[in-house]
Order: sequence, then C-alpha cells, then structure tokens
Amino acid sequence: MSTENGYKYVGKPRPLVEGLEKVSGYVRYTADVKLPGMLYAHLVLSPYAHANILSVDKSEAEALPGVHAVLTGEDLVTRDKVIASRNSAILAKGKVLWRGQPVVAVLAESPAIAQDAAELVMVDYEALTAVIDMEEAIKPETFTIWPSGLPQEDSDLTSIHGATDKAEEESSRPNNVHAEQHFGHGDVEAGFAEADHILEDTFRIEMVHQSYLEPHACVADPDPLGRGLTVYTSTQGQFIARDEVARICSLPKSQVKVIPMMFGGGFGAKYGILEPITSALALTVRRPVQLVLSRSEDFLATTPSPMTIIDLKTGVKNDGSLTALKARVLLDNGIFSFNLSGIVSMLLGGYYKWPNLQIDCYEINTHKPQIGAYRAPGAPQATFAVESHIDEMARLLGRDPLAFRLQNVAEDGDLTGVGRPWPPIGLKKCLETMQAHPKWQNRSQEPGIGYGLAVGGWPSGMTPASSICRVDSDGRVNIHLGTVDISGVNSSFVLVAAEVLGVSPDEVTIVASDTSNSPFAPGSGGSQVTYSVSGAVRNAAEAAKAKLLAVAAEEFEAAVEDLEMVDSHAQVKGVPDKRLPIAQLVNIAQSKAGGGGPIVGEGSAAKEENAPGFVAHLVKIHVDSETGRITPLDYLGVQDVGFAINPMMVEGQLHGGMVQGLGIAMYEAMVYDSEGQLVTGSFMDYAVPRADMVPSIDVVLINNPSPYGPFGARGIGEPPIIAGGAAVGNAIKDATGVRLTRLPLQGERLWRAVVGNQ
Amino acid sequence: MSTENGYKYVGKPRPLVEGLEKVSGYVRYTADVKLPGMLYAHLVLSPYAHANILSVDKSEAEALPGVHAVLTGEDLVTRDKVIASRNSAILAKGKVLWRGQPVVAVLAESPAIAQDAAELVMVDYEALTAVIDMEEAIKPETFTIWPSGLPQEDSDLTSIHGATDKAEEESSRPNNVHAEQHFGHGDVEAGFAEADHILEDTFRIEMVHQSYLEPHACVADPDPLGRGLTVYTSTQGQFIARDEVARICSLPKSQVKVIPMMFGGGFGAKYGILEPITSALALTVRRPVQLVLSRSEDFLATTPSPMTIIDLKTGVKNDGSLTALKARVLLDNGIFSFNLSGIVSMLLGGYYKWPNLQIDCYEINTHKPQIGAYRAPGAPQATFAVESHIDEMARLLGRDPLAFRLQNVAEDGDLTGVGRPWPPIGLKKCLETMQAHPKWQNRSQEPGIGYGLAVGGWPSGMTPASSICRVDSDGRVNIHLGTVDISGVNSSFVLVAAEVLGVSPDEVTIVASDTSNSPFAPGSGGSQVTYSVSGAVRNAAEAAKAKLLAVAAEEFEAAVEDLEMVDSHAQVKGVPDKRLPIAQLVNIAQSKAGGGGPIVGEGSAAKEENAPGFVAHLVKIHVDSETGRITPLDYLGVQDVGFAINPMMVEGQLHGGMVQGLGIAMYEAMVYDSEGQLVTGSFMDYAVPRADMVPSIDVVLINNPSPYGPFGARGIGEPPIIAGGAAVGNAIKDATGVRLTRLPLQGERLWRAVVGNQ
Repeated sequence: MSTENGYKYVGKPRPLVEGLEKVSGYVRYTADVKLPGMLYAHLVLSPYAHANILSVDKSEAEALPGVHAVLTGEDLVTRDKVIASRNSAILAKGKVLWRGQPVVAVLAESPAIAQDAAELVMVDYEALTAVIDMEEAIKPETFTIWPSGLPQEDSDLTSIHGATDKAEEESSRPNNVHAEQHFGHGDVEAGFAEADHILEDTFRIEMVHQSYLEPHACVADPDPLGRGLTVYTSTQGQFIARDEVARICSLPKSQVKVIPMMFGGGFGAKYGILEPITSALALTVRRPVQLVLSRSEDFLATTPSPMTIIDLKTGVKNDGSLTALKARVLLDNGIFSFNLSGIVSMLLGGYYKWPNLQIDCYEINTHKPQIGAYRAPGAPQATFAVESHIDEMARLLGRDPLAFRLQNVAEDGDLTGVGRPWPPIGLKKCLETMQAHPKWQNRSQEPGIGYGLAVGGWPSGMTPASSICRVDSDGRVNIHLGTVDISGVNSSFVLVAAEVLGVSPDEVTIVASDTSNSPFAPGSGGSQVTYSVSGAVRNAAEAAKAKLLAVAAEEFEAAVEDLEMVDSHAQVKGVPDKRLPIAQLVNIAQSKAGGGGPIVGEGSAAKEENAPGFVAHLVKIHVDSETGRITPLDYLGVQDVGFAINPMMVEGQLHGGMVQGLGIAMYEAMVYDSEGQLVTGSFMDYAVPRADMVPSIDVVLINNPSPYGPFGARGIGEPPIIAGGAAVGNAIKDATGVRLTRLPLQGERLWRAVVGNQ
Repeated sequence: MSTENGYKYVGKPRPLVEGLEKVSGYVRYTADVKLPGMLYAHLVLSPYAHANILSVDKSEAEALPGVHAVLTGEDLVTRDKVIASRNSAILAKGKVLWRGQPVVAVLAESPAIAQDAAELVMVDYEALTAVIDMEEAIKPETFTIWPSGLPQEDSDLTSIHGATDKAEEESSRPNNVHAEQHFGHGDVEAGFAEADHILEDTFRIEMVHQSYLEPHACVADPDPLGRGLTVYTSTQGQFIARDEVARICSLPKSQVKVIPMMFGGGFGAKYGILEPITSALALTVRRPVQLVLSRSEDFLATTPSPMTIIDLKTGVKNDGSLTALKARVLLDNGIFSFNLSGIVSMLLGGYYKWPNLQIDCYEINTHKPQIGAYRAPGAPQATFAVESHIDEMARLLGRDPLAFRLQNVAEDGDLTGVGRPWPPIGLKKCLETMQAHPKWQNRSQEPGIGYGLAVGGWPSGMTPASSICRVDSDGRVNIHLGTVDISGVNSSFVLVAAEVLGVSPDEVTIVASDTSNSPFAPGSGGSQVTYSVSGAVRNAAEAAKAKLLAVAAEEFEAAVEDLEMVDSHAQVKGVPDKRLPIAQLVNIAQSKAGGGGPIVGEGSAAKEENAPGFVAHLVKIHVDSETGRITPLDYLGVQDVGFAINPMMVEGQLHGGMVQGLGIAMYEAMVYDSEGQLVTGSFMDYAVPRADMVPSIDVVLINNPSPYGPFGARGIGEPPIIAGGAAVGNAIKDATGVRLTRLPLQGERLWRAVVGNQ
C-alpha cells in the first residue's frame, strides 16, 4: 500500500488513542457502571413467536427477597405508547409477536436475584399461528400479521441507511408485504430479446447476526427532581439513542442526556434497542436501572440482518455486453419494518452498465425479530446474486472474469440500480489494480483449488457533522465531537487536526462527550464517520488556525498570508527566527483586550455528494472432494479508500470486514424452525469465524481521491464485508464446477449439491 | 428601577435557573462527592506563626485503625517544588511561616478517623521570632522575613485584579517590603502650597475574611493509568484552578481535569488554595482524596483581605476646588505576595479631579497568611480614606457634601490614580440621581441620627471569553460556557441568548462544564463575568442565528435580510404565514447535503476597554449617646449598572454587596495577637452581619450604558461593597461630630473616641 502525499501527518499510520486503556483493562464499559441505589433488570422473553398473553402471575417472583419490582408493559410510564418498532416494543402488551420479545422485567438488588426471579414469573400464553417463512407469508391463504397495516410511529431510524421512498399502492400488495419499491429504466423484455444468453437463478441469503463482542447494555438514571434522566449506553449514536428515548418515553430531548460509553462493537445494531426500555423501567421505579443482555438474550431480542431471496434474471450478448437485469427481491423484515429496498436495488443494478433494468422489491412481515442494519445492510445480499451471475456469464462466454467485468463496469455518472448517477467512483481502478496484482496473475491450476473474484461497493453516508476546535493555553488542541469512536476513527481525527494546525498528533485530544455537551454529529455507521466528521474537524481546525494566525500577524506586524504553522509554532514564511509557540499565542488571545478572543473554532461539514467505496476481492479456496469441506486459503482485498487518513486503522477495518464477509459467506445463519424457535441462539450453534478459520489476508489500498471527501477520503467501513459471499461462491464454482446459490456456502451444502449433480 | 428598552427578554427579571435544585436540597456540593476508595484528609495546621519544625512523629497516628497515610511535605510527589505562594504552600517543609499553615496531612477511611489521627501527630517545633505588625515590620531593626527576597514561582494569580507592574529598585526598599509602586502627576507640594485647607489623617482598615457560606472543599481522583487526575472543587475559575494544579504538581494542563461543582460562595478567595494540596495527596497515595475545611480551619488556612494603613494628606481651596492628594499606603500582604497597589492607587486618586497627586504604595511581608482577593480587593480601603477626607472637606467649607462632590467628581477621560484616563463612567450620574432621591432630599434632623454619603467605583475585569451556541433538533438552545455561576450569572446569559435568537428564555440551557469540555472563559470574579461572557454568548448566538437564517432563506427562497427570528420561528418580515420553527430548521440543517451543516455557533468577546461601575451610597444611622452603639437604620444604594440584563440578579448582587460592605464598615476584623495567634477564628468571635443587624436596603439601578458592554452592561458585582465603610464613617461624624479613621466602626471605638474627645 502507498500513502505518498505531501502531508506531514495524515496518511501515516497511527495506533489507537485509547489503546493503553483497552489493553490494561481500565476501560469502563456500560456493564461496569454502578450507581448508588441501582437496580438490575432481567427480562422475561417470549417463548412463542406468536401468542396471546392470558395472564402474568408475579407473586412468586415478587416474594423473592431482593426483588424490587416485577413490571409488565401495563405497569410502565410508557404504557400508552404504540408498539410499532423494535425500539418501542419495550414490554409486550396483550400479545407477543416474536420469540424473544420482552414480556416482563424484573428489577432486583443483584443480577442473580433478578435472573432467579425472572424464572419465577408465570406467564400464561395462548399460542397462535406463527408466520415464519416469508415465501409462505406472501401467499394469499396465509395468516395476515398486520391486517390494518403496520402500526405507525414517528421513528426515522431507517433513513440513516439511505433508503429511498416512493409512493406506493398498498391495496394491491401481496399478503404480509408492508412496503414495496420498484426501480427500472429501459425495457427489460426487449433487453432479454436481444440477449444471446439468459441466466435465471434464485439466490437465498440467510439472516445473520452482528455478533459484536459486547452484548447490548444500558444504565438509566432518573433525575431526582423528575426532569428526565441520564442514560449510559453502548451505542453507535448518542443523538439517535437520545431521540429514541425522548420519543418513546415522551420526554423533551433536552431532558434526556445520553452518555455513550466505550464501545464494544455494534456493526449497525446499536441504535436504541435497550435505551428506551431501560429508561422506562428507571422512570417507572424512580431508581437507576441497569440492563445487560446475555449472549443468548442478545440473539433473541435484537435486530439481525434480513433473510433475502433474490430471483435474478440477466441477459448478455456473445460480445460480452450486458442487455438486461430483472430481479424480484424479497426481504424478510420480521415483525416491523426496516426499509432496505433502496440500497439493495442501488447495488444490485449499480456495479455494471445495464441498458435495461427492472427491480421489484417486497418487504415482508413475519413473526420473527424486526431486522436491522448489519455492516453494509443489503449489500452482501445484492452482491452475492449479481456477482454470481456475472461470474457465470464470463464462464459461459469463455471470458476472463476480470476482463469481462472491466468491459461492463460502472463508471462515474453511470446509473445505479435506483436510477441516480454515481458520483466519481473507483470500481474500475479496483479491477485494474487486481488485474496487475501478482496474486491475480499467478493463480495456480491445482486439483481442489478454486479462485473467486467479486466486486462490491457502498455509497457511504453523508449526514452533516459539526465540531469544535479549542486550543488550550499549553498549546494543546482539543477537538470536540458528538461521535462514538468505532474502528479507531478518533485516531484519524487527531491526524486531520494535526495536519491543519501544524502540531504533532500527540498534541491533539479528542473530546467526545455526551448529548448535553457535544456538537451534533452523525451516528457511527453507514461508512460516514471519517468521511463526514473529518470535514468538520478540518473546518474547525482551520477556524482555530485563522484565529491563531491573526494573533501572530499582529505580534509580527505581518500579513496573515505571510505566516505558516509549523511544529506548534506560527512563523513568518522563510524567517524561522520570527516564530511564536501556539501556547504563547493562546495566552495572548486569552488576555488581550480588543483582540479576537480565545482560540475556539467551529467547523461544520455537509457533504454535497457521497463518496462511494469499492472493492475487488479475490479468494483462494480448497475443496475437499470427499467431504465438500471448503477451506479458504488466501484472501486479497483491493479497495478504493479515496485517501487513507490513518492507514493503520483503515487496514484494520478492511481485515475485520473481510473476516465478517467470510462469516456471512461460509458459516453464519440464524436458523428458525417452523414454530419460530431460534435454533442457533448461542455461539455454540451460531458459527462466527474463529481465528483458525480465517486465511491469510492481504489488502491493497487505492488512493483514488473523492472530490468531496476530506483529503479525498471515502467511506471505507462497509465495502470490505460485501464481496465475500460472491467471491467464495465463484471460487467454489471454479474448484468444483458447482454453482451454489444459497449462503452460507457450507461444505455440507456443497457435498449435497455435488452428490445431487452426480 | 427602570429597564425601559426595546428588548423582549433582556432587562426583565428572571429567577435563578438552578433555584429548584437549591431549595429542594438536591444540589451536590463538593463535600457531597463520594468516590469509590476515597480517603478523607485532615490537615495538621501550624500552631506557631514562625517556627522550625524539628521533627514529626507519625507513629501514634499511623497506628490508629482506618488511617491510610500520614504525610509531610517531604512525602509528597511535589516535594521538590518551591513554596512561594499560598497555593504552593501545600505542606510545610522545615519551617512554618504563619499560624494555620498546613504541616501534616492525615488520610483515613473516614473524616472522624482522620481528625482523631491528626490530633495524634506529634510535631516538635522550635518557636522563632514572628513579625506580625506591619508597621513594626518595616522598621530596620525588625527581623527580615525574606532576606534574599521572596521565593520565585510562575504564578500569575494576581493579574486577575488588574495590578500594575513597574520597575523598581529593590535595594532601597524599607525592611520587609517586597514590592513598592509609585504613582503621580503634577506637583503635590505646589498643590498643598496653594490649598486653603490641608487635611492629614491615618486610616486603618483591618484584615477581614470573605466568609463564604461553603468552606473550601476539594476532591482529587487520580487517573488509574497515571495520567493526571480529575479534580472536583468549589472554585471561581476552573481554568485557573487547573493551571495551578498543573503548575504545582508538574503535570501538563491537559492531564488535569477540573470539574467546578455547585458553588457556595467565594468572593475572591477560591482560586486554587485546596486543589494543589488535594491533588498532591491523591497523586502520592494514588487514591481519591477529599479535603473539606472546617470553618475554623478556613479562617486559619486561606487568604483574607489585607490590613491596610493609608496616610492621607489632601488640600482644598475655599472655592471647593481640590489642589493635591498625597498618600502612603501600607499593605500587609502576609507571608507571600498579592499585588494590590495598582487598584488601591487607581481608586484612591480616581474618584475626583486631583490636579496634583502622589501615591506611594508598599507591600509588606509579615508572619500572617498570604492575603488574597475579597470582593473589590483594595477598594473599600482606598474609598474609606478618600471619602472620609472629602466629607471632612465639605464640612470644613460648609458645603453640601453632595454638591461638593459634584464640583470635583471625575468624568469620562479624567485620570485615575494610576494615570490612565477613565473610559465613560457614571459617577456623576450616580450623585445626580442620589441628589434627586427623596431619601436624600428628606434627610431628617434628629438627635442621635446621622447621614453618611460616599461614592465608590470599580473598573471591572475584561478577560476575553468564548462561548458555543448549539441549537438542538427540538429547537432548544444550548449555551456552552467555561464559567462558574456565581450570583446567578447563568440566569442572565439565558436572556441574552433568548433575545438574540427570538426564543423564550425557557428554551435556553446553560451548559457549564469542566476544563476538558468548556470553551475558555475568565474566572468568576473582578466584576467581569456578565460583562465579558455575555458578549461571547451574544456573538455565539448571533453565529447560530446566521446559520438558521441561511437555512430559512433557502427554504423560503428569500434574502436573509428579509427574515427575522420571532417566537422560536424564522419568518419573512411582514409575512407571518411564511415561517418555520427553529426545530425544523435544525433538522433540515442536520440532514441537508451541501448546506451549512448543524447549527453550532462560536462566539468570542475580547473587550477593548473596561466598563467601570460606580455607586453613591447613603446610610442613615442612630448612635446611642450613652454606649456608642451604632445602629444602621436605612441604606440606599444608587448604582450605575450600565444595563441590567437580569435586574433581579443585579438587585440581589447589590443587596449582598451592601450587607458585606456594612460588615467591613461596622463588624468584621481578623485580629491577631502579638504572637500571630488569630483571636477571631470562628463565627463566635468574628462578627458577620446577621439578618437582624441589616437595615432596610433600597437600590436604584441607573442605566448608563457602557459603549463596550453587551447591551451596555457594566461590571456590577464589586461596586456595592465599596462605599459602606466611608458612608458609615461619614454618618457617625454627622451624628456625633467624631471622625473615626479605623475600620470597623464599632460602638466601643466610637465610645472611646467620644470619651477621648470629652
């Protein structure tokens, strides 16, 4: 990788700023928060996917010494709120709608007492028909979950992943479809008519779980004077969590202070699931309450990614030009809604030039947990389908799969699957870089060995952000942010501020604070944090620099244009004797009458366009011909990162995403039986890649600057997870001649497919 | 009082924003902070004013169960620091220099154990000659306290009260004088030569204590990874306290986080006395440490105001014109330095037009506690002297004392006692308003009744300040400040922000935070907070307003100039239908691509000039001719406040200051015996005015806008304390014909003077 540039600090690797706390064990996570008088909550989760609650007998639980309260949905201060989303479904009322829905909360003096008491709560259920399979769900004869439509509320959580809204005719929808979206251009039937080859397949991608290291955890501490509360939580976005608590607990936002704690992973899942219920419990009993989920509870009670079925039909001419893409996408949203049609369609139809395109998306309700975001939500699904077809086409035409892609690849201004043109993108550069890479060039021909190539991309979020840069009287630079640090973004922001102000990164502190004290910034998700927030940091630092230079200009009796900031000094260009340390300039500014005042700069960034990040992935696998066992041997990721502000963190992000991509590709699935029972509800049953299951990983960072990104940076968090499924699928085809169309690509499935083929 | 103006919110009374917490008892003061593993410190104070420490026997104390450590100055992490100020004199080393100097600290599991153990610490002292009286101190034959000069350190605490520095010849100084300052213009001898009357008196003003309700208290919590500490403290300035801890504990400022707690009064005394010692103790034992002084310890171990002796000689012609002022001022600074010569001289020679002036100030060391700031430091002293003489002159000439003052009163551009011209001031307006007031007009002539008039003034501080205005997505306005709220200044800042943004003050929150999270602002003292910080608040709110209007302008397709902010909306002037709520504008700003970004505004204020506040006070007293008992009956204060942003808080400030002024005038004195023992070390011995000792108080606020102040506001905190001593002294003269020249003006002194006169 290369970070050649004219910068002094950005583009150079820098370790995690909070590394020492983390390795020394001094970090306090949410579960470590202990407040005076705090009660421990334990939830009773529904054992049924669909049932009436006939009665709740609390008496035995209440009688257990140390139990403070046993509460149902009717007991809470939020009892009148409509349950219309995972976040608002804090305790069930009358009915349960998925296996794992919280029904009763026990509050006790210790976690163990709370758990014991929860087992003593007797809930009498009347089991009802459960709709589990989404292909069954859409049949007219199936039970209709929401006959009057989904209940309404004012959440706007889904908007953070760039979903597209369109007017739609509810009346004509298939059964249990609560939303549909249709995108297209050209005439797909005419396109198929001119094709020499038409491919049709159904791709199935299982529900998977984000499997962050730290399960959901929250502490809520009510104000003793009845004016709201303080919430300590493991969240990706303190402002989103605050707004959800305010909305669901009917409080003014200003009465909810959310303190984002050190974060143990989220990958899209931590935007307000526990904060509302913990807050409601605390406000009801007027005591601090802590709620920490066990791993099994976390599997049952949170928001995994959707099971997705894509019927894909594509056409290609003998000359390699694509003629048409037509897709029907079924998304299993679980019991409530989470709109991913837009992003799925954008990518499904966006990697290549499709002259004719039609995508029909249906979002379906089932008696399963509401789905949510998981790193690049919708993207691995869309990519598995389209990149499998592209691979098949190349094979059909006898073309090199990379050259075939280069012939059709989308470029700047080409249309995405939702009809909007791409801003400048680097997909072609990824392929060209891959083409030149020794690992591509030197692919071996050995029995049992297969190589799979796939591309992937993500548009990046672009929520506006703000930041404050405050330079202290010892010369230290403080960058105030309202973001949560995931994946070491703070360690990049210090480089941005250092670069602008000409100080060592060691002289920069990131002050990431709570909702009462932070400038607004987006949630840490959607590959937007570095992209959006770095711009705010840069602008804030520039504002502070302008103030420092104004002080220096007056001291030197020089023009600001003749000054520069170097090594924590302002100096006259070319006159190294004429320099003053930043600390001294700040002291002057903080005491000088009639000057510009203390050195505080404000900066905002509201990007005009997103800065998509693309990858080309090459995976090498071995297939055991006897057992079907698939072993990944080598994994190469080429990614257009625009500009790697902190290459060390970027590489870490790529490695992590590629491992998760292999998990989706080969191992992970949340499996529900026909009654809606989760049969993979622990890490004994649900297989995330262990260290010994991960091959050697190489990454190549391409610096293809976005015209909009700070220093050219692009969104880089989501792209590395996207292409794994398709790449492994294509490698299996390469090794065995068998095309698998269902993720995860497990050995057993391959063995059965091979047996089926024989 | 009148606040007629064109404003909607500023100028209207508003109660304390934190009133509910205070009256309900939910406020947490520093003494309420309890941290896990926290130790309680108790100090062993020196019983001698000057002694060698021969040995310290800790064994008995250490043996007491629950005692964690018994520490001397040699045991601390700061053991190598020079002791050169009250703040750095954390534990004595080798010598004690005043009665009450901390010598040993005991750290124990409870406050009671710590106190018991402190009594078991055996310190063997060798008593040395103590220099207590400053008139003795300057005699050549007296023991010289600092034969090699004061030890040097880099504190700049005194600068907050605008002291003036001049080059000086150390060698020619009188004994035990560590600093002298000389001011003058014209030719005083020529002035006296042309005078028809010359007055000469020596005025003595006792040392008094600030007597805040909350004694000093501090908690220091070291970082477990050895990177500095967090300090919870009762302070007037978190940045000053932080810098003192950093300096004295040799830490980078960024490793010291000072959390200013709810404040129980300081009046100038709370700028870092306990923070360094508590921090050093905590850093030494690596545990959280709490140190709370008892009232008696607070009297002994803090920084009272200086005993002051002013030899004053003045000349006046028969036509009432002043000819000359000559003064020698002796300031008893105690064991270290605290420079007040500048401010004393500025006011002593600044209220009237003196064609010839000479002031010689000597700052003297004694074996008493280092003095510090007390509300208007130096001003009651200077004012008592000069206003007594002015009153005498009027009597001598048979002139009305008010008319005589009007003839000579200083106006805009006249020189202060240090030779700098006054900016626009309202002293004359105060006198004219007093002249027209019924209480002045209707002074009665009754036996035993006397009226005293005096003026006073204060230049106000002008430290630059910064602020952030953050408007949230529910339309709420957050004002971020680095100030401590004393006297309800936060309740004024909400009005400033509300006025600028066109929102109700109920929609404004003050976010006053710790040193890691606050924009720089001055300490809350020197009558500068409202003056300086309001400007920053105003500018920050204006910056946020500009961003809001830019969003609205785009929404309305209108020019920003055609918009206004009214009732939490932006609207097109004259088109009330075209309006959008602020909350909606913020939501647009937080999501709109390519816009101005989130609504965050930065504002600074660095005043070009100060905005002095002046008073004219009239006190009515009764003197019992048998006993000399003096009873204040009525107290009228006329004050030029420039503009009262929150008249309710301003009136409260005036009442409080006038009561404290009566305390200085009539009751309070820290009395030391010849050995340096404080004989008035508790509220049993040291008389602060009780409610039944305070007369009815009336205040008149004059709105004489400063050209520099926000909305014309001036410094108002210090002026009301200044004139009490002179006013009561002049009233005693009026009632009895006796001129007392020593504060406090107690009945016993009057009785003795009367007896002496008879």
